[in-house]
Amino acid sequence: MNFEGRQEKLRENIARNRLDGLLVTHLPNVRYLCGFTGSAAALLITRSKSQFFTDGRYTEQASEEVQGARLVIARKAPLPAAAEWLTKNAKKLRLKILGVEGEHLTVAERQRFAKNLPSGLRLRDASPMIERERMVKDEDEIEKIRAAVLLGASLFDVALKTIRPGVKEVEVAAEMEYAARCAGAEAMSFETIIAAGPRSALPHGRASDAPIPASGFVVCDFGVILAGYCSDMTRTVHVGQPSAEVRRIYQAVKDAQEAAVAAVKPESPVGKVDDVARKLLHNNGLGKCFTHSTGHGVGLEIHEPPRIAVKQKERLQPGMVITIEPGVYISGEGGVRIEDMVLVTEDGCEVLTPTSKELIII
Amino acid sequence: MNFEGRQEKLRENIARNRLDGLLVTHLPNVRYLCGFTGSAAALLITRSKSQFFTDGRYTEQASEEVQGARLVIARKAPLPAAAEWLTKNAKKLRLKILGVEGEHLTVAERQRFAKNLPSGLRLRDASPMIERERMVKDEDEIEKIRAAVLLGASLFDVALKTIRPGVKEVEVAAEMEYAARCAGAEAMSFETIIAAGPRSALPHGRASDAPIPASGFVVCDFGVILAGYCSDMTRTVHVGQPSAEVRRIYQAVKDAQEAAVAAVKPESPVGKVDDVARKLLHNNGLGKCFTHSTGHGVGLEIHEPPRIAVKQKERLQPGMVITIEPGVYISGEGGVRIEDMVLVTEDGCEVLTPTSKELIII
Repeated sequence: MNFEGRQEKLRENIARNRLDGLLVTHLPNVRYLCGFTGSAAALLITRSKSQFFTDGRYTEQASEEVQGARLVIARKAPLPAAAEWLTKNAKKLRLKILGVEGEHLTVAERQRFAKNLPSGLRLRDASPMIERERMVKDEDEIEKIRAAVLLGASLFDVALKTIRPGVKEVEVAAEMEYAARCAGAEAMSFETIIAAGPRSALPHGRASDAPIPASGFVVCDFGVILAGYCSDMTRTVHVGQPSAEVRRIYQAVKDAQEAAVAAVKPESPVGKVDDVARKLLHNNGLGKCFTHSTGHGVGLEIHEPPRIAVKQKERLQPGMVITIEPGVYISGEGGVRIEDMVLVTEDGCEVLTPTSKELIII
Repeated sequence: MNFEGRQEKLRENIARNRLDGLLVTHLPNVRYLCGFTGSAAALLITRSKSQFFTDGRYTEQASEEVQGARLVIARKAPLPAAAEWLTKNAKKLRLKILGVEGEHLTVAERQRFAKNLPSGLRLRDASPMIERERMVKDEDEIEKIRAAVLLGASLFDVALKTIRPGVKEVEVAAEMEYAARCAGAEAMSFETIIAAGPRSALPHGRASDAPIPASGFVVCDFGVILAGYCSDMTRTVHVGQPSAEVRRIYQAVKDAQEAAVAAVKPESPVGKVDDVARKLLHNNGLGKCFTHSTGHGVGLEIHEPPRIAVKQKERLQPGMVITIEPGVYISGEGGVRIEDMVLVTEDGCEVLTPTSKELIII
């Protein structure tokens, strides 16, 4: 990973925003800029310096992982440690306006931090510059995302082997998560959703103790974290023979998903991609059953900008990785969702998820 | 769970803090007050009303789970939905000063929320009232925590069967996590730590691809979430025959842990409990190798108040559940940590973790 290059880009953004520096406290942003993967850190980027703060639990890990920044291992938490360091060094470095990450710092953290700063230093809530850079993935990241997507997709085969009437949803999830771990995943990227029968109408139906019924949809939505990068996919299978209406609903979601994917290309506003999926479901009389947005960015975090949602104006750019995941939910009956991860390319897009979207009947 | 009782207690706190209401946005607090387990919610508690906000993905789940509050299912995110509701209702309800959770709300969230409020309504950053109530667990919670602790402890047997020289750390974690899921755990309460040989000197050594060496400590730190409540425990085993010095270090940590447990009783300041462990390690020449605090509260979150750390003045109360987990880390060589969950009782404490602390040699 080109940590120095990322820090240089941030320095340009810092200058453009008329700041003398930025205190980075959001951990995925810290990781993006210097490689640290632990749970307590702050990274101060000034026009000339990069200073990293963590506590004694991470002495070894920080010296192994952190690149492009000097380390401060403190006896206090990273934010007070940064305040202490600034008290000693702000004047010498001519720091007058320091940006903080208003989207991530809590109100109380900001107050405590501000209280401990030297008098000549003012804080300003900076816009999410790093998140904007992170939207477009570099080659290294795309490679890692591809690996995560392939590992994630392999878990669907495990699900297919496990899903049977009477098996608990959570047993399916357990088999998938075990396979993920054995294959090197650090963790699942979110709580595995296995939602069967009427529970498939819950868009966020985490795997429960409920047994899979003899007939109905099973929504499987899952992902892994591999080398820091997330995958995310959904497939919906049907247990027992589906009726004509059930097939029609599945086909409508599949059509909406494929149409939205076909709309993914550089310069397209993300709201238009959402619109394509929404209109298609509307035309099939299912508009009201699609109760969430069409997708989101994925990378170091499972949900990142851009949001592929109604009226969002962000324009797609080559290197963005997003999900396309329309769904239809009919309370008391069931639901269908189909989700791929999609890479925006120079002339359109590439669907990263390798898995067939044909209806599988178990 | 006595959700109404908890809400009534919060109303007393709201009145005592001269607020007309509190907007609860921290999800574990929302869950504590009304039972909702989803990932998008806000709960407005005024002196007379409880109003719950979520989005369309959670229509069914909210109506199943939420107790003691009226539901608003909104087309927007919970915070803007709450702002919209307040614009319509604040005047009628005579709401003038609304508390928000400054420890959890981000700076940007607060700004956007404030911008959408009606003119007569002011925001105030409230102190963490709900967290303070949550420190002392009620009977229902203690029962759930006991169940989580026992399930967590059963995973140590899985670890003991799996830990062998040459087996990867992550394989040990995979077996434990699989067993946890099959036994009903919703998730692990944090990323499983299996840190073998020199990696045991990393206090937060998440299970890696590294194989367990032929000789050395293996730190196993892990926990489950069961019915919403977390468990947390650490045991350290030794692969191969330990030297006299290795045995001495293990014994010192065990002595420190047991001495700190013995110091847990009502009215004791938590800093004193930390001090007991720290002094004992210091007297064994290992003070500098104990680089973190002695423990923390556990409940709906894996890390809750109180912090059992140097100079902390919070006094223990019956019903608090905390960890006691001193450790010793020697860079390049290895480390030992021993951790139990402990319930503060009327006349002392009860160690909830049932597992022996004798050194196990594999």
